[in-house]
Amino acid sequence: MEIGKIVGNVWATRKDPALNGVTFLVAELEDGKKIVVSDSIGAGIGDRVIITKGSSARNGATTKSLPIDAITVGIIDEKEGEK
Amino acid sequence: MEIGKIVGNVWATRKDPALNGVTFLVAELEDGKKIVVSDSIGAGIGDRVIITKGSSARNGATTKSLPIDAITVGIIDEKEGEK
Amino acid sequence: MEIGKIVGNVWATRKDPALNGVTFLVAELEDGKKIVVSDSIGAGIGDRVIITKGSSARNGATTKSLPIDAITVGIIDEKEGEK
Amino acid sequence: MEIGKIVGNVWATRKDPALNGVTFLVAELEDGKKIVVSDSIGAGIGDRVIITKGSSARNGATTKSLPIDAITVGIIDEKEGEK
Amino acid sequence: MEIGKIVGNVWATRKDPALNGVTFLVAELEDGKKIVVSDSIGAGIGDRVIITKGSSARNGATTKSLPIDAITVGIIDEKEGEK
Repeated sequence: MEIGKIVGNVWATRKDPALNGVTFLVAELEDGKKIVVSDSIGAGIGDRVIITKGSSARNGATTKSLPIDAITVGIIDEKEGEK
Repeated sequence: MEIGKIVGNVWATRKDPALNGVTFLVAELEDGKKIVVSDSIGAGIGDRVIITKGSSARNGATTKSLPIDAITVGIIDEKEGEK
Repeated sequence: MEIGKIVGNVWATRKDPALNGVTFLVAELEDGKKIVVSDSIGAGIGDRVIITKGSSARNGATTKSLPIDAITVGIIDEKEGEK
Repeated sequence: MEIGKIVGNVWATRKDPALNGVTFLVAELEDGKKIVVSDSIGAGIGDRVIITKGSSARNGATTKSLPIDAITVGIIDEKEGEK
Repeated sequence: MEIGKIVGNVWATRKDPALNGVTFLVAELEDGKKIVVSDSIGAGIGDRVIITKGSSARNGATTKSLPIDAITVGIIDEKEGEK
């Protein structure tokens, strides 16, 4: 997983029909790269989150079979011990 | 997912038979890298799109079991809040 | 797989419900990149570990169907023969 | 998918038994990186091809269940509209 | 797939139980990056090998369902035609 910070939203009216109602956020990864993630845990701008990518993004509580490759799986409380 | 801009088309007469009728577009990612994506939502040159990669590209409305690894899943209306 | 060194912990109270009880560690890869990994083999800060990423992260002894994309699969005793 | 140019062949006598009869080509991607791809559409040196990577490489016409992660899926006729 | 050269071994006593008896080698990819691969074709230090990554690493002759993401699939005899 990677740590990212939520920095924006993105909207798409024309989209794959399976994605109606799915929230898309823009997350900035620790290397500065920005990706789009689906969120179902209530993350918002400014939150630091744990992001799961790839096929495991379809193992979220509400993401089974969706055409998505990145989701938020946790909002970070605290990190410790890292140099 | 990643955000890309559609910048071209690509045609292949000789191809895997499962890909007959599939549209291939060239998308430029935010880091400047160009990839080929399959499109079934009607994206065209100049559109900014959300792109899903990897196995989830086979979870599009019309892409089940295809030998493809990247699809457009949404045409972006607007982004907000991003620094 | 990649070799990483465990350098920290990360906690998230709000998370995907499937992740209750899952341990998250921060691992530094050999190129300096830091990722978050789930651990079920007892790795701790300072350990050098073998990390499996992608869908195979769901093939760990206790990780089936979890929305995670990186796990520790071994704690390294020794490396040999490497230039 | 990515666009690559076929620049060579590679042979392996000792290999996973499932790969007997599989053709391996060397493809140079647009960033200069060289990878090995399996081919079943008749691509040869000098051809520009569309390459599918990851699990979808097992969705080619003849590649089901093979331990391969990259295949040619089309030989490019023409590209248009790309800056 | 990628071409790598076997440059070392790595041992882990504490590991996921499914990995008992699995051989781990260190391979150096063409860009200099080192990864850990599982081997079941008899590769040894100094061999140049074809490496399959991702979910397809679980499609090796002896790797079904293992928590691994990279395997050797062939020992290279010869490459030809590459610039």
